[in-house]
Amino acid sequence: MESGGVIISTKPNQPEPLTMGAQVKDRLEEPVAEKNQERLFDYPDPTPHPHSPPHVTISMPSTPTGLNAEAMRNGFFGGDERLSAVHGFRDKRFDSFKTWSGRLERQISGFRGRTHDVEDEDRNSPKGEHTAAPPVARYFDALHGPELDKLKPLEHSVLPEDKLWPFLLRFPISSFGICLGVSSQAILWKTLATSPPTMFLHVTQFVNFALWCTALALTLCVSTTYAMKVVFYFEAVRREYYHPVRVNFFFAPWIACLFLCIGIPPSITDKLPSELWYVLMAPIFGLELKIYGQWMSGGERRLSKVANPSNHLAIVGNFVGALLGASMGLKEGPIFFFSVGLAHYIVLFVTLYQRLPTNETLPKELHPVFFLFVAAPSVAGVAWATIHGHFDTVSRIAYFIAMFLYASLVVRINFFRGVRFSLAWWAYTFPMTGAAIATIEYSAVVKNPFTQVLSLGLSAISTVTVTALLVSTIIHAFVLGDLFPNDLSIAIAEKPPRLSKRRINLICGTPERKKVDDDDE
Amino acid sequence: MESGGVIISTKPNQPEPLTMGAQVKDRLEEPVAEKNQERLFDYPDPTPHPHSPPHVTISMPSTPTGLNAEAMRNGFFGGDERLSAVHGFRDKRFDSFKTWSGRLERQISGFRGRTHDVEDEDRNSPKGEHTAAPPVARYFDALHGPELDKLKPLEHSVLPEDKLWPFLLRFPISSFGICLGVSSQAILWKTLATSPPTMFLHVTQFVNFALWCTALALTLCVSTTYAMKVVFYFEAVRREYYHPVRVNFFFAPWIACLFLCIGIPPSITDKLPSELWYVLMAPIFGLELKIYGQWMSGGERRLSKVANPSNHLAIVGNFVGALLGASMGLKEGPIFFFSVGLAHYIVLFVTLYQRLPTNETLPKELHPVFFLFVAAPSVAGVAWATIHGHFDTVSRIAYFIAMFLYASLVVRINFFRGVRFSLAWWAYTFPMTGAAIATIEYSAVVKNPFTQVLSLGLSAISTVTVTALLVSTIIHAFVLGDLFPNDLSIAIAEKPPRLSKRRINLICGTPERKKVDDDDE
Amino acid sequence: MESGGVIISTKPNQPEPLTMGAQVKDRLEEPVAEKNQERLFDYPDPTPHPHSPPHVTISMPSTPTGLNAEAMRNGFFGGDERLSAVHGFRDKRFDSFKTWSGRLERQISGFRGRTHDVEDEDRNSPKGEHTAAPPVARYFDALHGPELDKLKPLEHSVLPEDKLWPFLLRFPISSFGICLGVSSQAILWKTLATSPPTMFLHVTQFVNFALWCTALALTLCVSTTYAMKVVFYFEAVRREYYHPVRVNFFFAPWIACLFLCIGIPPSITDKLPSELWYVLMAPIFGLELKIYGQWMSGGERRLSKVANPSNHLAIVGNFVGALLGASMGLKEGPIFFFSVGLAHYIVLFVTLYQRLPTNETLPKELHPVFFLFVAAPSVAGVAWATIHGHFDTVSRIAYFIAMFLYASLVVRINFFRGVRFSLAWWAYTFPMTGAAIATIEYSAVVKNPFTQVLSLGLSAISTVTVTALLVSTIIHAFVLGDLFPNDLSIAIAEKPPRLSKRRINLICGTPERKKVDDDDE
Repeated sequence: MESGGVIISTKPNQPEPLTMGAQVKDRLEEPVAEKNQERLFDYPDPTPHPHSPPHVTISMPSTPTGLNAEAMRNGFFGGDERLSAVHGFRDKRFDSFKTWSGRLERQISGFRGRTHDVEDEDRNSPKGEHTAAPPVARYFDALHGPELDKLKPLEHSVLPEDKLWPFLLRFPISSFGICLGVSSQAILWKTLATSPPTMFLHVTQFVNFALWCTALALTLCVSTTYAMKVVFYFEAVRREYYHPVRVNFFFAPWIACLFLCIGIPPSITDKLPSELWYVLMAPIFGLELKIYGQWMSGGERRLSKVANPSNHLAIVGNFVGALLGASMGLKEGPIFFFSVGLAHYIVLFVTLYQRLPTNETLPKELHPVFFLFVAAPSVAGVAWATIHGHFDTVSRIAYFIAMFLYASLVVRINFFRGVRFSLAWWAYTFPMTGAAIATIEYSAVVKNPFTQVLSLGLSAISTVTVTALLVSTIIHAFVLGDLFPNDLSIAIAEKPPRLSKRRINLICGTPERKKVDDDDE
Repeated sequence: MESGGVIISTKPNQPEPLTMGAQVKDRLEEPVAEKNQERLFDYPDPTPHPHSPPHVTISMPSTPTGLNAEAMRNGFFGGDERLSAVHGFRDKRFDSFKTWSGRLERQISGFRGRTHDVEDEDRNSPKGEHTAAPPVARYFDALHGPELDKLKPLEHSVLPEDKLWPFLLRFPISSFGICLGVSSQAILWKTLATSPPTMFLHVTQFVNFALWCTALALTLCVSTTYAMKVVFYFEAVRREYYHPVRVNFFFAPWIACLFLCIGIPPSITDKLPSELWYVLMAPIFGLELKIYGQWMSGGERRLSKVANPSNHLAIVGNFVGALLGASMGLKEGPIFFFSVGLAHYIVLFVTLYQRLPTNETLPKELHPVFFLFVAAPSVAGVAWATIHGHFDTVSRIAYFIAMFLYASLVVRINFFRGVRFSLAWWAYTFPMTGAAIATIEYSAVVKNPFTQVLSLGLSAISTVTVTALLVSTIIHAFVLGDLFPNDLSIAIAEKPPRLSKRRINLICGTPERKKVDDDDE
Repeated sequence: MESGGVIISTKPNQPEPLTMGAQVKDRLEEPVAEKNQERLFDYPDPTPHPHSPPHVTISMPSTPTGLNAEAMRNGFFGGDERLSAVHGFRDKRFDSFKTWSGRLERQISGFRGRTHDVEDEDRNSPKGEHTAAPPVARYFDALHGPELDKLKPLEHSVLPEDKLWPFLLRFPISSFGICLGVSSQAILWKTLATSPPTMFLHVTQFVNFALWCTALALTLCVSTTYAMKVVFYFEAVRREYYHPVRVNFFFAPWIACLFLCIGIPPSITDKLPSELWYVLMAPIFGLELKIYGQWMSGGERRLSKVANPSNHLAIVGNFVGALLGASMGLKEGPIFFFSVGLAHYIVLFVTLYQRLPTNETLPKELHPVFFLFVAAPSVAGVAWATIHGHFDTVSRIAYFIAMFLYASLVVRINFFRGVRFSLAWWAYTFPMTGAAIATIEYSAVVKNPFTQVLSLGLSAISTVTVTALLVSTIIHAFVLGDLFPNDLSIAIAEKPPRLSKRRINLICGTPERKKVDDDDE
């Protein structure tokens, strides 16, 4: 095991011994950069390791000093992963993330110990022996950007940065945002077609039907793909779950299902079985117990550390669930989720508004993620109206808060320039749709030209945004081919790179790495 | 006065001069450890002090260097306090906490200046001349544990750590928690016996009667004992009042009285005079003005510094008072306290959920204190229902929030392992009882098997917990005899021990003392 | 330009070249103290600057070292500004704040680019080229006091500290507080005269009429004066707008107008046109979009940094607007502003109660600014009652919260000793008036001796306070003549003075400047 850290990436067709999984896991826990520094002169190991003999050695560099992280980034390997697969070469650098690459019994014991690992994460991870997922502080140290998805300079990826990873590894949980965007559009067009204040538009219910079918197909598609990721790359899923921003997207699949239920075309069914509601709310309830508990019970995932607009995804499910339940005729269940949502929404709203000094990950520029602010109050208003049977003052308070926040974002619209497209944007469109739906509901009780124009305007903005995003997604998927870039946010090393401060200053020119060093001491 | 600091502890049978109280007070303000360091070589003082001549000298160590804090901990005195009392020896080390040990006029001036001292505490304490109570920062520096009741290593107690203190000094305000626990059980069994949804159980009202009488007796007993502490050891009470966690327990006596009023057996009376409510709410109102004012007006006791789940005790009194008042038929008063409680509950809930980085005293492991989270919303729900005459949506919102928090704690139950028993736990049982009562009230309006099972389940959990705690308390009181250990949290020295960092590292091995040193500079 | 920084202040009658405005602006951005240090020995510049030749040189000191900031404070110029104007001397040190002192085209481009500058302030200001207003951190570094209006020791003013500035430069936006105080009194006396519970007092409506006319005259007067400041000293207005405390007073003019509308004597009109409401709420809405957006979207003006009781002024406008709108018979608009106010009030209330450790500008002593805490809930209660047609439970909750906060402040009244009078105090009187009005409204529904005595008592306190303040203001204006002292809070230099730490310690004796130095690094 002593010499394995880098060798493994230079011998692609080395036969996999039975103990490989365990070895890779150990290797993963020893950051490569550090290892390189430690043994610049005793590498390559002249004595073959008894358990993993290097059968084939390809393009081993003559000077060992060249084989550092820097060199890995510059790329030894130009080959494509699919090519390797066809030719029988297997790139073992991804094995550490594969579920079935190691010994079966180890995996199974891993599955059994998982729940326990999650609970003990904060305590165990410093030891770094039993879990490969980095502690949450590492995510903040190693990543930047509003979605914490870009590697900071000097940080090292445990997966190769020079080549395209296997598709499943690059398929993030935020892909469910597409389902959110399209299924909420289905609801909007159902409302437009059936709601009294927009009846005069004579929108055909077919739009709702078509959008709903598309949303259903997309949800099935994304779910199947992500399920495959769970099966084949559990480690990657686990790292997404530990990612402080990405974890909130684990609510997205269930919210998408709730949206599908709400937007179901009247031609299919008018009445869904109430059992469905319980089935869909169960995982949301479970996730909430987990996530909110982490916020409160402290440790590295306390709310004051992980506060980010994407937390709204963890809140909005309550209101969407309350809305669906109330529209099904349930009463206590919806009020339960409404209450839980309300309590935690107040906490989150205050926390995000305060912008605590500890929360430094949010960028100064306004980012589409800010639109999530609009989601919770607009859905909450409609949910309360559905629970109570009419759009009363409480509904209006929630709706007006949403409208103010919307206006507050729209006047800052020029900040959106120069933001890199990301799949996660899809999740940021449903709040616009929600605001449009809430406005239509509101204009049903306060019918005047202003509310009608507002309904149409917000609906148009929402549909145009979704269309624009659809076009962008298609362009990125089929023209540019970069819809699913390497998901570096799951590939951060468990420990920070150990470099002398002098070298850091030479490379970066800024004391940006200061924080990481401080955390080490 | 120059040589008194340590000598006093070595001359137990020295007759007490009239000026002793003042001297001891001065001595208390000069930390012994520091003093020892300063005059390692001019001690023992060869010239007898004119005001406190050493009549009898017992076991004076030959080398003065041995007489440091370390040595005091290791124990010169093996004798028991009661033994000393019997044999006519008086241990003067406790005199500084005694109310009547010094000159009467000084004490009386102390009483007069007390209110003023409390207000000016933050400004005066650095001078350390007029008040013996340490500033709040010292409590955080010198103590640890979720209840801030364990002395950190290297910290020095101003009272002897080697022997058992007088009983009253060891009797903490948190003993009122027992009254809270038992009297809330009386309410639960009253509800079980009289509420329609649990009528089918045919619970006899005698259980309520017996529990209520027990609670009344306990409350009288604890109150009398604590009143004696107030009279005889006012300084100890004062230090408890300044303790950032302990101060919240000063609400407990009044809440216990409110519980007794709510749980009064119908056979005794159905209608309490409304004057009683005003009498009981007055001290709560006064304490709130004091405590909430400290939270807001800043200084060392600002909420962001003292936030701790035990603050819920300072909130829940409002809702209990509102509940009692409303059940008495009052209207405005209960709404007043409900409003005050609501406003400050929101503040506290958000603050505790955020887990601000400045608040580092809360342990990572879940502690029974977390159950206080359940108290306020469950009582608030019942109070609102009583004010408005029925369990409406607002009541449900409060109740459901309580239920979610309860569930959130229950799934973390495995964290409770390895927590040391403490009297304060009693205060953490009444939230469970409150949740059970709220569930019974809720199941009266939403009657179905689920709510009925939930009512019985929560009632059972609550009763079992209280019983288990009762058994523990009896074991600790009569078998182990450690129910009232030395209450180190009131005996911290006013100034941190001054030790070289090198010595600290030698002793502790960890840089744990860093914070204290930073605060000094 | 190299030698201009100090020369300009030594040549008062130098003719102004066309490029002066630009030059002064550049000079302003280079702190004089720093400049002096840098070129102690190459000054005065022997070669005349080609663009600004020194035509007349008056009292140039023989030794250049004498010409530092210290010397400027001690005062070269004893003359009064008005005197200078009469004699044809113009003090050019104020030109940098004058709107029309520079080239017209530059000013106009400045106007055009202003909105953009404001948005980009945080990013551009470090470059210090395009904006003269200091970044918000400078305000906190350079100023202290509860209203951030006193210069810290060692800080340098860009305007002369040794002489009285032009009146308009000394006329702060907080002068609108007088309008708030008097117009709210007009409302109180209208309520006293017309409300059923105080009808028995037979208060004549003439008091309301007289107060209202006074308030109207004052508002017109203050508005005209401030409008002139906007026209002639736009830079000063801009710096007030960037001042983290002062910016909240920009809501005061509009709130004063709302008060005038609410307090309009019934003899003038009973029914105001609803258009007026929209006209008055538009600027409040615009300011809120701006200010709340700054709180949320982070940067230097995030709420956790600028939180201060004066923020209540930014909230209370919503409730006053809701109250006026509802009393006009509108419904949706008032609920909109009520909702926006409620959401942000919760955020602000929690933030202020927490007293975050980052917010260190608030003094320990209670200051009249704390009375703003009472404003929002008392006005909100009345607004809700007006919207819903009766003083229901929600109104009571708001009203009781206000009463508790009022009581909480009153018991701390002894803290008010030794606070310097300031014009801003006027703004802190209207909360008392609001509480009195809310109590009268409350006593209309809960009529008993206690509420009636409370109504009269609070009304009396409010009127006495306003009268006392009026007397103070008149004394300060006409006897002491210091009602409008130099407004140092708008004259801070953009960069901190650069002094060696050793010299700071020599001068200050305390490490007070530490924070500034840390921020620099």
